[in-house]
Amino acid sequence: MAYLDHAATTPVLPAALDAYVRAAGRFGNASSLHASGRAARRVVEESREQIAERLGARPSEVVFTSGGTESDNLAVKGITWSRRAADPARDVLLVGAAEHHAVLDAAHFLADHQGVTVVPVPVDAAGRVTPDALAAVLAAHRDRAALVSTMWANNEVGTVTPIAELAAVAAEAGVPLHTDAVQALGAVPVDFGASGAAAMTVTGHKIGGPVGVGALLLRTDVACTPVLHGGGQERDVRSGTLDVAGVAALATAVDDAVSRQQDEARRLAALRDDLVARVRAAVPDAVLNGDPVDRLPGNAHFSFPGCEGDALLMLLDAAGVECSTGSACSAGVAQPSHVLLAMGADGDRARSSLRFSLGHTSTAADVTALLDALPAAVDRARRATAVSRRR
Amino acid sequence: MAYLDHAATTPVLPAALDAYVRAAGRFGNASSLHASGRAARRVVEESREQIAERLGARPSEVVFTSGGTESDNLAVKGITWSRRAADPARDVLLVGAAEHHAVLDAAHFLADHQGVTVVPVPVDAAGRVTPDALAAVLAAHRDRAALVSTMWANNEVGTVTPIAELAAVAAEAGVPLHTDAVQALGAVPVDFGASGAAAMTVTGHKIGGPVGVGALLLRTDVACTPVLHGGGQERDVRSGTLDVAGVAALATAVDDAVSRQQDEARRLAALRDDLVARVRAAVPDAVLNGDPVDRLPGNAHFSFPGCEGDALLMLLDAAGVECSTGSACSAGVAQPSHVLLAMGADGDRARSSLRFSLGHTSTAADVTALLDALPAAVDRARRATAVSRRR
Repeated sequence: MAYLDHAATTPVLPAALDAYVRAAGRFGNASSLHASGRAARRVVEESREQIAERLGARPSEVVFTSGGTESDNLAVKGITWSRRAADPARDVLLVGAAEHHAVLDAAHFLADHQGVTVVPVPVDAAGRVTPDALAAVLAAHRDRAALVSTMWANNEVGTVTPIAELAAVAAEAGVPLHTDAVQALGAVPVDFGASGAAAMTVTGHKIGGPVGVGALLLRTDVACTPVLHGGGQERDVRSGTLDVAGVAALATAVDDAVSRQQDEARRLAALRDDLVARVRAAVPDAVLNGDPVDRLPGNAHFSFPGCEGDALLMLLDAAGVECSTGSACSAGVAQPSHVLLAMGADGDRARSSLRFSLGHTSTAADVTALLDALPAAVDRARRATAVSRRR
Repeated sequence: MAYLDHAATTPVLPAALDAYVRAAGRFGNASSLHASGRAARRVVEESREQIAERLGARPSEVVFTSGGTESDNLAVKGITWSRRAADPARDVLLVGAAEHHAVLDAAHFLADHQGVTVVPVPVDAAGRVTPDALAAVLAAHRDRAALVSTMWANNEVGTVTPIAELAAVAAEAGVPLHTDAVQALGAVPVDFGASGAAAMTVTGHKIGGPVGVGALLLRTDVACTPVLHGGGQERDVRSGTLDVAGVAALATAVDDAVSRQQDEARRLAALRDDLVARVRAAVPDAVLNGDPVDRLPGNAHFSFPGCEGDALLMLLDAAGVECSTGSACSAGVAQPSHVLLAMGADGDRARSSLRFSLGHTSTAADVTALLDALPAAVDRARRATAVSRRR
């Protein structure tokens, strides 16, 4: 079986799973005052320091959460709530048009239920928010902007965003910027402090850590109203019993992802370039979506004209090749990708797309397995589409 | 070391950790359409069925979350939002006065920021919301009540609530009832369907499952606005990548907790009764808080007149006995327990309290260790308190 869906989730690293099992064996609630509680707390704080150091942050800036979706919700809702509470005129939320649903749907909740105006920041043909585009939207909403949320790298088409430039544009307007760095971490250099972002989302299961644990990196001078209330853990920004084992495993995965980032990016980009070249040779009219250069090293995203992406996915799956039509988070829902539509693609191109994403277990054999299966799958998907369109 | 703080967190069961590790080894995002994704989805759905069957629920009523705090927040905020959206006059939230902070603080957020009126339902001297008390409060707010939230068993003093009677009172008034059953599960029989509750919180790490995974049991006819928005997992009530390994481990823990509940309750109650008798013999003026009969089998909660609970905790800890002054979720914060205050205790009694909680690893040796250390610790804490009060 060839697994080409690492952007959806990547196998947990043995070292991260070991760290999980070791920490799960120590009982003790990290909020308890006794020795077992303090031992658990030490694991959490050492993990926090390690993560902070690897991500260019201070330990006090690391807020542990249950993962990317929660971190995105916390940043988008929490910072907007706090900014608006401090100044009721700040009721506009600027979000990239190609953001993950965890950002978009959190923003739409604020729009639908709490009178926030959500303004999309358009993306270019590669799916990227540019500094000029952000500056233009900010200029129109300067005095009302509560927050900008724009991703570091796109989870579908893989385009990498100039996040430091965007944060500088936002800072110039006096508006904090949140960035979802879930896909960027481990793939490109990620330094929270240097980025200038006010808040940044990371999660474990995209970098070989467990599912169910992540963090929001949050500058301590940025007020953020909690989304989950309770015992007041995580400097009162996020309540809930600390997942000591998950946090220890996350630290292991972050350490691995950052220390191997450069080598792994080189290895995966070479594999990916080979994949792209061979797909183009096999299916000459395939369209590579996203930026050809500034893209995640493990990402190849194509539209196959005349195919339904879903049909192609199932045909490849039957041949032992696993990939995605886009985000797994919205997979199963038969609608064209909002990312491709935001990039200006028409519905046909959007619906005919497939994402191949490489990760730490990927080898040349996976690429060969894809290419062995792809031509026949594309032929068959095209015939099926043609038949269904004749009806 | 004698660990008498199982109510804060209990050691993970080897079978649950095995289930975690087995499932973590299978990669695949449960929302992916390919074979690995479908295999992950099968683990989730089989776990869901097992949990539902064990808890008297239908599989469609199980919404996986990151744990008790998130489940409480989802029920309290989500159901209140939905009820109010359907009828703006429903702006009153009734919460037991001795609820966990995850319920209380979620309620206060709605009061502070969203115009909801929070009405506490008083508890009796044992810390229990009675049907009469709930009926009286409901009668005063019948047409405005959005939701009742009252716990199945109190996490500090261990009193068990007549939850089915309370749900019947709420149903009579046409108001849904949410119950936090985090402490009840595994300790007393818990049947969601038979309880009449509209929603019920459970979590893994109190029953030998991992931290970071739990569920909200939610009747399908009860509308609930999401707290975490995104990919639309968990029937659009809770978004976020499903924690396949956590869910599998949770199912193992729930299965164990429910199947062994009766035997374990008998075993722990006998141990606990021995502990209570011996504490009373050693410290004759110690006051047992909570209901003497209708209480969790593993819970013993005392006030030690003339002691500061925190000082006593640290003295016992130094002697290798680990316990709590109350909820670990608010431990470290030096204020008297809101639970004891709600029960009518004065500040001195509230501040002088300690909780000893037993669980699956507890033995008679733990009780003996406590009794070996307790008299000297109480003496010393009393002398320290007397000195500090003379100053």
